[in-house]
Formats: sequence, C-alpha cells, structure tokens
Amino acid sequence: MTRPKAYLAGPDVFLPDARRALAIKADICRAAGLEPLPPVDGESDGGAADPLARARAIARGNEALMDRADLIVADFTPFRGPGMDAGTAFEVGYMRALGKPVFAYTNLPGAYMERVQELGLIGPEGTRDRDRLLIEDFGLAENLMLATVARGGVFAPAARPADIRRDLESFRLAVAAAAEMLT
Amino acid sequence: MTRPKAYLAGPDVFLPDARRALAIKADICRAAGLEPLPPVDGESDGGAADPLARARAIARGNEALMDRADLIVADFTPFRGPGMDAGTAFEVGYMRALGKPVFAYTNLPGAYMERVQELGLIGPEGTRDRDRLLIEDFGLAENLMLATVARGGVFAPAARPADIRRDLESFRLAVAAAAEMLT
Repeated sequence: MTRPKAYLAGPDVFLPDARRALAIKADICRAAGLEPLPPVDGESDGGAADPLARARAIARGNEALMDRADLIVADFTPFRGPGMDAGTAFEVGYMRALGKPVFAYTNLPGAYMERVQELGLIGPEGTRDRDRLLIEDFGLAENLMLATVARGGVFAPAARPADIRRDLESFRLAVAAAAEMLT
Repeated sequence: MTRPKAYLAGPDVFLPDARRALAIKADICRAAGLEPLPPVDGESDGGAADPLARARAIARGNEALMDRADLIVADFTPFRGPGMDAGTAFEVGYMRALGKPVFAYTNLPGAYMERVQELGLIGPEGTRDRDRLLIEDFGLAENLMLATVARGGVFAPAARPADIRRDLESFRLAVAAAAEMLT
C-alpha cells in the first residue's frame, strides 16, 4: 500500500537546527503511516552562485514536492509579527487550489485578534490596528483564507509551550488528523 | 474580445475606505483593458450570523473569484510586520497552482532583509532574527516562494510614498505588465 505523501510546510527551514527539527517531524509522520516530504533547503539549490537563481531553484523545488504530495501539514505559528510565514501561506494556497487536503497547526494558543492585542498593534477603535486596517475578528487563529481550509480546524495548544519553534504537541494532532483521513 | 479578468489581492479590504480604494484600482484595470475582480468584503457574506460561517462564506467567495480570474495582481506591501498579508500570500499560491500569471507590487522600496533590519528584529549574527530564525537574503522584496513567481519581478517604488496603503504607482506598473502580456 502506498503511504500518503505529506508536504511539511513551515518556518522550520529557517531554524539553526533545521535538518534535525525536520527529521523529528519526518519520524512522527512515518510512525503515523505518512511519507514526509520536507521542503528543499538552501543547501539543495544546485550550487547556483546568483542569489536569484538560488531562490528560484529552491522555490521550483518546493513546487515540485507539492505537486507530488497528497496533502500538506502547515505550521501557522506566528512569524515576525502576529501572523504566519508568507511562504507557508503561499504553499497552503497552492495545495488548496490543487484540491489536496490541508492540515494546519500553530504553537500559540488564541485567536489572531488576541495576538494583535498582545503585540500592542491595536488602535484606539479596538477593531482596527494603528494604521486603521481592520483586524479580522472571527475567533480564528489566522486569516480566514487560511484558517477555513484547515481540515478539523487549526490545531493549537491550550497554553503557550516552552519552545514555540520546536514544540510538537499540535503538529502531532495535525498529523494524526491527516493519517486518520488518508490512510 | 473578452477582457482578461484580474483578481485584485491585497489588504485593501481592511481599509476604512475599502470600497473606494478598490474602485480606484478597478478603474485603473479597466483603463488598461482588464476586467477587475475585487475580493469579497465582509458585507457580502450572505448575512450569516455565526462568525465561522461568515469567514467561510468570504473565503469560498474569494476562491470562486480566483477560479474565474485569468490572472492575479497582488499587493506585497508589508502588513503588521516585515512581511506581507498571509491571505494575499495564500491567494498568490492558489493562482500559481492553477497556472495563472501572477503580477505583484509593493509600496515600500528595498529587500525583505532591509525591512527586518528597520524594524529592529535582526539578531546579533546579522543573518538571523532575535529568535535565531534565518532571514532570507536573496535581495528579494518577499519570501522566495512569492517573489520568484511574480512576472517581471515585484514592482516597487524608488522611495517610500506618502501613503503606503493607497499609493498607486507600483500598482499601475503591475497592471501595465499584466495588460501587456494578456491583452
């Protein structure tokens, strides 16, 4: 029987210990019956010298992995602000358009609105930020385009874990949901 | 002759004057020979009372617009941090997977790395942020998954405009590139 292939989207590739962190996640996928497809890293770029050529090689490599994948498990944990990594959001949209199931997790509890408040970005109106841009307030962990496509919702912890970049509790829940649906 | 349909992705929907801002962009598209498809706004949600049902109605509405569109013109201007709006990133990935051309603009000059520096998020190593996450340094305006799919590159101003949420210079360049390729 062929194991469903899970593309592992998220900022893990930016960690100092990226390969180790992704290897741990890959093992969790295998134990659940899924074949993990971690993203291409900067060292798998074919050695192109030009930065744009390297960037393109990585991007096209990740698209090829997504084309092969059966599903995506995506990390919605906030990244340099109240919201998730844009590259991961792109990948979720890509898989959604291909009709492949999206499973999502975040390592921070609470809704998007609460994180905007915590970071002090909220304006005097309470519904808009300091630039007067409306803050989405649907009780969702992320922007509605992202949060509403996640099967079973966005898996999240009840309390903030010690290491929001490496915690595995919510990742495990997303993988279990994917395995239950697809294996 | 049918005009190519352009989905207008970006945080305009969150502006206090969203409808006016999108009407101006729609007029620019029409003048260039494109049919504009602005995103669904919160008032076009079918009146559902439940927040999740409203979020879903908006998201499914935007997906239906993208399915009809021939191309996307996306705003990569930073949103509550150094990076772009996650919803817009999702939409770019969605259109990319459908093989539809992506045109992108940002109203801030400079590369992603410079914006991380300006916001004081850079760590002591110079290549990683304060959480020790690697900062992409390819000279691109955004994450490589996004920046490398933009036809003609990410259109950007030479200097910061007075109103980064409503400036039209870079939007006009992206629309002109789309019109040149598709009309």
